[in-house]
Amino acid sequence: MNKHKVPKGFLINGIHCGFKRKRKDISLIFSKTPFKVAAMFTKNTVKGAPVIDARKKLSRNGLFNAVLINSGNANCLTGRRGLSDCRKMAEMTAKELGVKQEEVLISSTGIIGKYLDLSPLNEGLSKLVRDLRKGSLEDAARGMMTTDDFPKVAYRSIDIAGEEVILTGLAKGAGMVKPEMATMLSFLMTDADISQEAMKKALKEATDQSFNRITVDGDMSTNDTVMLLANSEAGNKTITDRGQHYEKFSEALKSICLELAEMIVYDGESASKFIGVTVSGAASIKKAEKIGEAIADSLLVKCAVLGEDPNWGRIASSAGSAKEMFNIDKIEIILDGVCFYKKGRPVQTDIKARKGVFKGRRVEIELKLNEGKKSARFYSCDISDGYIKFNAHYTT
Amino acid sequence: MNKHKVPKGFLINGIHCGFKRKRKDISLIFSKTPFKVAAMFTKNTVKGAPVIDARKKLSRNGLFNAVLINSGNANCLTGRRGLSDCRKMAEMTAKELGVKQEEVLISSTGIIGKYLDLSPLNEGLSKLVRDLRKGSLEDAARGMMTTDDFPKVAYRSIDIAGEEVILTGLAKGAGMVKPEMATMLSFLMTDADISQEAMKKALKEATDQSFNRITVDGDMSTNDTVMLLANSEAGNKTITDRGQHYEKFSEALKSICLELAEMIVYDGESASKFIGVTVSGAASIKKAEKIGEAIADSLLVKCAVLGEDPNWGRIASSAGSAKEMFNIDKIEIILDGVCFYKKGRPVQTDIKARKGVFKGRRVEIELKLNEGKKSARFYSCDISDGYIKFNAHYTT
Repeated sequence: MNKHKVPKGFLINGIHCGFKRKRKDISLIFSKTPFKVAAMFTKNTVKGAPVIDARKKLSRNGLFNAVLINSGNANCLTGRRGLSDCRKMAEMTAKELGVKQEEVLISSTGIIGKYLDLSPLNEGLSKLVRDLRKGSLEDAARGMMTTDDFPKVAYRSIDIAGEEVILTGLAKGAGMVKPEMATMLSFLMTDADISQEAMKKALKEATDQSFNRITVDGDMSTNDTVMLLANSEAGNKTITDRGQHYEKFSEALKSICLELAEMIVYDGESASKFIGVTVSGAASIKKAEKIGEAIADSLLVKCAVLGEDPNWGRIASSAGSAKEMFNIDKIEIILDGVCFYKKGRPVQTDIKARKGVFKGRRVEIELKLNEGKKSARFYSCDISDGYIKFNAHYTT
Repeated sequence: MNKHKVPKGFLINGIHCGFKRKRKDISLIFSKTPFKVAAMFTKNTVKGAPVIDARKKLSRNGLFNAVLINSGNANCLTGRRGLSDCRKMAEMTAKELGVKQEEVLISSTGIIGKYLDLSPLNEGLSKLVRDLRKGSLEDAARGMMTTDDFPKVAYRSIDIAGEEVILTGLAKGAGMVKPEMATMLSFLMTDADISQEAMKKALKEATDQSFNRITVDGDMSTNDTVMLLANSEAGNKTITDRGQHYEKFSEALKSICLELAEMIVYDGESASKFIGVTVSGAASIKKAEKIGEAIADSLLVKCAVLGEDPNWGRIASSAGSAKEMFNIDKIEIILDGVCFYKKGRPVQTDIKARKGVFKGRRVEIELKLNEGKKSARFYSCDISDGYIKFNAHYTT
C-alpha cells in the first residue's frame, strides 16, 4: 500500500476518536486547493442524514475543501436531530481546518437508527487535523471500515499531454453484496484538471460497471456514496467530456473502481470464495445484466459454491428466474471452464474434470445464451455459516 | 390428519417406488368421474418437462382422470428425452388406470438436470393403483415431499345451497421461500360442481394472496405448480364466477391455500421462526406488496430474527430498497407489538418490552406508512446455519 501515491494537494488521515471502541473510526480528506465533486448516492428511499446533506450541498455545484467520514454510526433515521448533527460535524471540521461549513462534506457508515454522540469529535477532530501530514492512505481507509477485514486502496497514474495525473481511491464495504444492506463508500481523489461534465460522465460509466455490478442496481444501503474529487493541481490541459484525454481518464477511473469493487467482494463477510459470473451471447446488454444479477444474487448458487458442488441446475433455474426469455435448447452452462449443459441436454462431463470445479478460491460461472453478441459480468462471493452467525448478532 | 375428508369420487395414494432411496416418492390423485382443472405454473423461463407437458394438455380445456406426482427428480433441463419420459409416465399411468394418456397429468419435483430412470415405475405404478383405496391423504402428501419435514394437508367443508362441498388440499415445499428455487406443488381437490371460469378466477385470487405471498411474484422454481381439480360429484348447483356461492367457495379456497402456504413457511429448511410481515397504511396495494416483499426477502432481516435482535434499522433499510416512495417522518415500525420508530425518530422503548421482541416462535414485523388505507401481508421465516450447511451439500 506504500507504493500508492496521493494526488497532488490532497492530505488524508484516519484515527480513532471514540465512535467505535478501539479501532479507527474517523477519516479526513483535505485539499487546500478547492476540489470539484461528482457523486453517486444510494437509490434507497431511506437515506442517511449525510446523504441528504451532501446532495443538497452538491446541488449548488460549488467547490469543496474536505470530506469527513465517520464509521460506527450511519446517522440514518435520526430525523431532524440527525440533520442537525451532520451540520454540526461539518461546522466543527470547517472550524478546525479554517474553511467554511459549506465546503465540507460528511459521510457516515455504521448502525442505523441511533443518534450520534458528537462529544468524541471535540478532541478527535483536533488530532485528526493536526496530524494530517502524517496520515497515510491506509489510515484513511481504516477510519471508514465497519465489518471490513482489510482496508481498500487503489492507485493509477496516467499521462495527459505530458503531465502526470494521479487517481487514488479509497473504499469501504464488506456486506454480502446482495441481499444486503451494508454501506459501500468510495472516495476517488485526483489532481486532474477536468470539467464537471467529464467527471460526472466518467463516474457514472465507471460505477455502472464496477460498484453497481456487485451491489446490483439500486438495491443499496441507506448511506451508499461514491465521490470523485478533482482539485486540478496536476496542471494538465483540462479534460473535457470527449476525446482521447477523456478516454484515458475514464479508463483509469473504471479500472480503479473495478479493483476496489473486487476488493469489496473478496472481503464479503466470512466469504471463502470469489465468484465471477459472465452472461454472454445475449441479444442485449440489459438482458445479460438481468440474468447475470439473478445468478450472482442467488443464495442457493452461493451455497453450492461454498459446498464446491457444481449444481448447474440451480444456476439455470436462477437465470430463468430473471424472467428474461432465452432458449434452453441453445444455452451453455460452463463452470470453471467445464461445460455441464449444451444443446438442450446435460453434458456427460469427464468425472476428473468435474471434480476440480469450484475447488479454487476464485470460481467462474459462465452462461452462454448463443443468441447475440452482448455480455455482462458480475462479481459475487459465497456465503457461509459465519455470515449467518455474524449477522444474527450484529446488534442494534 | 385423519379428520380430513377426501372429496367425493377422489382416490389418493402415495408409496415408495425407487426414485428416492427409502422414502415415498410417488403419489396419485384419481377420480373415475373426470375432473376439470384450473392451474397456475411457474413464471421461470426454465420450465420442467412436466410443466411444459401439462400446459399443453390444459390448453385444450378438457377433462382429466388423474395426476401422477413423483419426487426425487424434477425432470427439468432434460431436453427432448425429458418430454418423452414425461409422456411415457402418463402412458404407463393411463394404462394402469384404464384411461387415456391425455387424461393424465404429470408433476415432478427434485433434482434438476438429471434424466429420469423410469424402471422403478413398472412395479411401482401397479402397486400404487392396486392400493388406491387404502391410500391416505398423508401418504399422497408424503409421496411428493423432497426437503419437507412434514406432510401438508388442509381441508374445508362448505355448504352450497344445502349440499356439502368438500375442498381438500395437498402441498409440498420447504425451501427458504426466497431467494430460493425449491419447488412448490399444491393440488386442491374438490367435488364441487363449478364452472371453468369460476375455478380459474378463484384459484388466481387464492394463490395471489397465499403461495405468491411466500414465493414472491414470479421468482419461482422451474416446476412450481398449483392445480385445482373439480369433479362435480357433490351434486351442488353449479358455482359460477359471481354471486354468494362463488364467494363462499372462493373464501374456502383462499383460506385453505393460506393454511398450506403457512405450513410451507413453517417448514422452511432449518428455520426456527415464522415471520409475519404486514405493510399497512399504504396509498396502493401494489406499493404495500413491493415493500412487504422487500422486507420478507431480506436476508439481513432473517438473520436479525434468528439472532432475536430487534434491528429495526435493517427493516427500514430493506423497505427503502423497494424503491417505492414513502415519507420516513410518517412511518412507524412495530416489532411484536412494540413501536421502535415513529414521527421521524427512534422511540425510546421500554427496555422490558424490548427484551421480549423476536423471542417467540412466531414473530411479527409491521410497517405503517400512514399515507393511505391499503395493506399487504407476507410470510417468511428466519435463516440459520443449518440452511447454509444443508444447501451447500444438497448435491447434484
